[in-house]
This record gives sequence, C-alpha cells and structure tokens, in this order.
Amino acid sequence: MQLPRKDLFEIPDGVIYLDGNSLGVLPKGAAARAAQVIEEEWGGQLIRAWNSAGWMDLPRVVGDRIASLIGAPKGSVATGDTLSVKVYQALDAALKMRPDRKVILSDSGNFPTDLYMAQGLIETIGKGHILRTPEPEDVVEAISDEVAVVMLTHVDYRTGRMHDMDAITRAAHAAGAVMIWDLAHSAGAVALDIAGSQAEFAVGCTYKYLNGGPGAPAFIYVRPDLIDAVAPGLAGWMGHAAPFAMDPGYRPALTTERMRIGTPPILQLSVLQEALTVWDGVDMAAIRSASLRLSDLFIAEVEARCPELILATPREPSARGSQVSFAHPNGYAVMQALIDRGVIGDFRPPNLMRFGFTPLYIDDADVIAATEVLQNILETDAWKAAKYRRVSKVT
Amino acid sequence: MQLPRKDLFEIPDGVIYLDGNSLGVLPKGAAARAAQVIEEEWGGQLIRAWNSAGWMDLPRVVGDRIASLIGAPKGSVATGDTLSVKVYQALDAALKMRPDRKVILSDSGNFPTDLYMAQGLIETIGKGHILRTPEPEDVVEAISDEVAVVMLTHVDYRTGRMHDMDAITRAAHAAGAVMIWDLAHSAGAVALDIAGSQAEFAVGCTYKYLNGGPGAPAFIYVRPDLIDAVAPGLAGWMGHAAPFAMDPGYRPALTTERMRIGTPPILQLSVLQEALTVWDGVDMAAIRSASLRLSDLFIAEVEARCPELILATPREPSARGSQVSFAHPNGYAVMQALIDRGVIGDFRPPNLMRFGFTPLYIDDADVIAATEVLQNILETDAWKAAKYRRVSKVT
Repeated sequence: MQLPRKDLFEIPDGVIYLDGNSLGVLPKGAAARAAQVIEEEWGGQLIRAWNSAGWMDLPRVVGDRIASLIGAPKGSVATGDTLSVKVYQALDAALKMRPDRKVILSDSGNFPTDLYMAQGLIETIGKGHILRTPEPEDVVEAISDEVAVVMLTHVDYRTGRMHDMDAITRAAHAAGAVMIWDLAHSAGAVALDIAGSQAEFAVGCTYKYLNGGPGAPAFIYVRPDLIDAVAPGLAGWMGHAAPFAMDPGYRPALTTERMRIGTPPILQLSVLQEALTVWDGVDMAAIRSASLRLSDLFIAEVEARCPELILATPREPSARGSQVSFAHPNGYAVMQALIDRGVIGDFRPPNLMRFGFTPLYIDDADVIAATEVLQNILETDAWKAAKYRRVSKVT
Repeated sequence: MQLPRKDLFEIPDGVIYLDGNSLGVLPKGAAARAAQVIEEEWGGQLIRAWNSAGWMDLPRVVGDRIASLIGAPKGSVATGDTLSVKVYQALDAALKMRPDRKVILSDSGNFPTDLYMAQGLIETIGKGHILRTPEPEDVVEAISDEVAVVMLTHVDYRTGRMHDMDAITRAAHAAGAVMIWDLAHSAGAVALDIAGSQAEFAVGCTYKYLNGGPGAPAFIYVRPDLIDAVAPGLAGWMGHAAPFAMDPGYRPALTTERMRIGTPPILQLSVLQEALTVWDGVDMAAIRSASLRLSDLFIAEVEARCPELILATPREPSARGSQVSFAHPNGYAVMQALIDRGVIGDFRPPNLMRFGFTPLYIDDADVIAATEVLQNILETDAWKAAKYRRVSKVT
C-alpha cells in the first residue's frame, strides 16, 4: 500500500489541507453512500430498512471497523452520539466503579468539553466530587489513592503533545484508579493498542482523522472483561438487552452495546462506514511513520524559513501526535492569511497555529509548498491585512 | 393549502404507508440537500463551512423551525442528540429545580426509553430518587407534593391515547412539580401550544411526523423565563457561553443553546432542515382536522369490515393523537401479512397493530384501500402464513 492515497478523496483544487485534525476531507464514496441510504433505504424501504438495510446493526458494524484502527477487539466499541456524551458515559461508569473516591483527575491541556462534562456530572451527582487539572507533565505525580478516575486526552488538541498511554495507565491502576483515554486526536493519527494499555475506557470522535464528516458519530471502547461492571447512566433503549420487548425496567445489553443510547444517526453512520473504507489495507505503523516524516519535514522547513515562529509541539517524535503547532503573537491573522492562500490549518487561543498531517492525503510536496506560502506571508507582512477581520467562530 | 401534499414526497409505488408515526417518508428535497452538504459544503469548503455554510447556527435555525410547529417562541428550542439524551437533560435540570423532592412521576404507558433514562439518572445521582409509573388514567391523582417532576409522553406510542396537556400541567404546578412533555408522537401530528401550557420542558424527535429521516436529531424546549435556572448536567462545549474561548470552566450559554452538548450532526440536521420545508404554509389546525377525519374513517371502516379487531385507541377525538391501534391475538402476523401486501403499519407488544395517519401524504382513498386489504387478510386467514416468521427487531 502506497501513501498518500489522494485518489480516494475529493480535495478542492488549490488547497493544501492541513486541518484534517479538525475536520477530515471528503472521501469519494461518501456522497454516493448518502444518496443510497436516502433514496433506496429510507425512501424505498422505509421502516423496513431497520432490518432489511441493516440499520439496527450499523452502530456495532461501524464500531468493529473503528476497533481495528485503535487496537481493540471486535465487539468492544459502540458508536453514536457525540464525543461529549461518550465522555460523560465513561466518567459516570468509572465513578460508579470507585464509589469510595471523589477525585476526577484530568489535566489543564484537556479539551474543554471533557472538563465541562466532568463538571456537569459532578453537579448532577451532587456529592462533592472534585475535578483536578494539573499541568500535563504533572499528571503522574498527581495520581493518588484519592483519585477515582484519570481522564486524559491522549494527544493535546493545542500542542500535539502526546501522553505516554501505557505508563500513565499503569500509574492509574497502581493507585487503584480507573483510566479513560480520549482518542479524539489519536484515532487514525497514531498507532494505538488500547487493549494492550489495559485502560478501562476510551472514547473518540470520527470527524477528524477518520473523515466521517461534520458531526459524525462518536465511539466508546470498554475493556471487554469489565462490561458486566458498567452501569450505564444514560440508559437508553438501544442499550437495553431487548429494546423491542418494551419492558418498563432497564436491563443493559450483555455486550458493549449497552453504551448505545437512543435511535442511531443512520445517515451519518452510513457515511462514516463508507469513509472508513479508505483504511482498508492500511497499516497504522506505516501511517505513523509517514506522519512523523511529514511533521519532521514541516518543522525543519518552518524553522529554516520562518525564524520568528516558535515551535509549541514537542520535538521528540514519540512525544507528539500528528499535528504541529507554532506560536506567533499574531497567529490568528497569519492563519487567516494562509487560509486566504489555500493553505488551511487552524488557530487555537492564545497564539497557536495548528497544522495537522494526514498521510492518506498529504505528501512532502504539500508540506514544502505550505511552508513556502507561510514564509512569504511572514516576509511580506501579508498577515497584517487579515489582522482586523472578525474572529471566526470555528477555525 | 390543500391536503395531502403527496407531490412533496417520494412514496414507493404500491405502498400505503401508515407508519409515519415511526419513520416518516422521504421528502423530495432531502437527497439533493444531502448531496449539497457533502459535496459543496464539506467537500468544497471543508472546515470553513462551520462559518461559510452556517453549520454553527444550524441547530438554532432548525430549532426555530420546530418551535413554530409546537407553539413555542423563537429561540426556545435546541436541537441535536437523541430523544433519550434530551429526556435526560430535562429530567436532570428538573430535579435540580426541586432539590427537596425525590419522586419522578411518569406513567406505565410511557415509551420505555423515557423510563430507562429516569432509572439511569436515579442511579447516577444515587440519592434515593424514586420513579413512579401509575396507569395513565391515574396520573393526576398521583401528583402529590412529593413529586419533583412529572414526565409524560403526550400521545401514547401504543394506543394513541392523548393526555390533557393543559390540565395535567396545571395539576403538576399546583403541587409544585416541574412538568416535562415528550412530544415524540405529537410534534407534526396534533396542534400544540407548548408555551401556552406553561410546561417547563418539552422534548421530541423529528424522524416520525417531521420526516427528518432515520436517526434525525431530537429537540428540547425550555420555557424561556426559566432558562437561567437550568443547570445542564450534560455540559458540553457547544452549550458553553463562548465555546471557542476554550475556557477550562463551564459557563452555560445565556439562551436555550445551553442545551446543546457536542458537535452537531450537520448532515442529519441539514436533511431535517430540508424536510421541515414541507410544513411551509401548513396550518396545524388543518392537519389536526384532516388527521381526525382520516382516523375516524379508518376506525369506521375497520369496525365495519373486521369485527374481530378490538379498537385500542380512545374513540373520543380529543383523547387521541394521530394513530389508531387495533388489538388482535395474532396482531404480529396480521401486520406482517399487511406489510407483504404494501400496507405498512407496525406492531407493538403484546397484540397491537398500529396505524399512523399523516395528512401530508395520506388521503381517504388510502385509508379505504388499506382497510380493504386488512379485511381480505382476515377473511382469508392469509395472516397464518406469516405467523411463524421470525420476529422483526424493529417494526
């Protein structure tokens, strides 16, 4: 298998897309799959499609495909909802596994919604749980026997810094804590062995490196030997052992399917299923190797061409994911100027320009071309024209 | 405006679809809208589409359209997630408004997932809350000053029996309880004045009478004067006052947007937005009038033609929604025989055949034709051939 596989994607002419860490590009088959689901399945089969088109099983089928990309066994991954909701499910289940402990340990670099969901759950429970968020490098030291659950995002959304999954999971377990990994910036980006890590839970989203499209469903992994011990707080009918028995009492499914909640988003799941076919025959070790080659090249080129930019990502390959961030006091304006010229990355406060590297559709020539544009913007002060435009709501 | 408006929908040849109360039919514009979102917005604009294609505002825009169909003011309805999750949000917020009370009152006819979500929330909180489920006709009597929240589905998914929204809401408020209405079988089916009811919360789904497609997003209404008092337990970043400030601390949005959670399902929301255009110029009073004419006709025809079927739906028009259920000891097999002949309704245990009436795409001739097929199946015992087929997972 050769990388990149640009022929599998629709990439606009004139665009170098270094934002696959935010929203992946469009796989070529997605539109046809959506049309099929809408016209043939929904339109033609109507309610019967829940059986005849396999809609009922789709969350599990898609979950199995994701499992294969994160080092998880079949049947251990459920899909649906948003990542925020999946974070809540994992946290809720984890706290119930450690009823004598009150601390949720995360870090200050976690993506805000993970912290917000923890805060919301703490308020809902109302028993004085505490969320602690030390700096990322201080997490291991902060793991004590007060900690019920350690919840971390594996790759930092701002800097690309990657936690040591195995070491932190071991430290959590040594202290008797449950481990939750958020793989938002890892799934499809780095080689993962979530089962090997022994972590109890992992969650992630599919619209970044997995190219599932805007608002694509999230996923949750539960370590298979623990599923009986997981008490779903979001106890929806699709997670029931027999949804169509219409029992008045909740009985969770015997498998990871208990992490399903409501009626699955069939249209988005179908497009995601199609998007995942681009991974057929792809070795995640080859992706990781190409990703590091691309990001190393980017770092070297930017540092040679743009000395005023400060690398905010760890230089050590094993300590970073598949994105590179550079700081600039006018990073927002510089990024706008880049986007205006077809080089699409994004910006995160206070001053970080983020560039994601997706070896399925980015190659060395793209990297070099992008750095040439960046160099030109900085040398000519072209970013000043973009400086005073309104702040984009999403970048 | 004339009813029906069959020209706005794709309905398969040879099908009389009396299951719009489960999954609405395909509006003609849906496939083109999906193609546009996928190819032009996602494929062409990529991450920029969050602003340039209006993705960020889509949950609110769609919520406003739904608001107009349920008698709610603009800005009072948020969309996204599944109905199960929206039930949880409403229950969680309601319990926080009545911290001194421990009872959630529902009824034995509520859709199971509503009861399950209550059970799950009770387990997560872990403070001894109780779910009570009297028979539907005994709900008002069961409202006491122990009750924190009354949570009911307005129209019963099995029988079509409709609760008196105003009377029950008044009774709940008289006892100091918070009122939550589940409008799953009401929105787009009956005329609603949710604001006039003074209920604190309403939730609903959009894949039934609103034709949003399989897994279309749910909605939640919050009475506008109460929004400041709503503390979201599912405190996702999209409900934050400033999602892209990336604050470590959660601050809810000042509006109903605080009921948003994670990244919205743009593809499903866009198709739903398109689906809702079929309601342009439609008067819900006219829909209700046509719905009752169709269901009255159906009841009369079935009772004349099929005396062995027992009406399970209230005969009194003001006491039912837009579906009619008949009981038969072999209802499952009879329904299979109907479906085999192109008359699509569905079955709910233990013995109910459900038929939904959707005046946008069903007319009197459809009703009469459907009852002719039903009569023939019963007179010829044609259902016996379907009796021993496997039980469908979804009907």
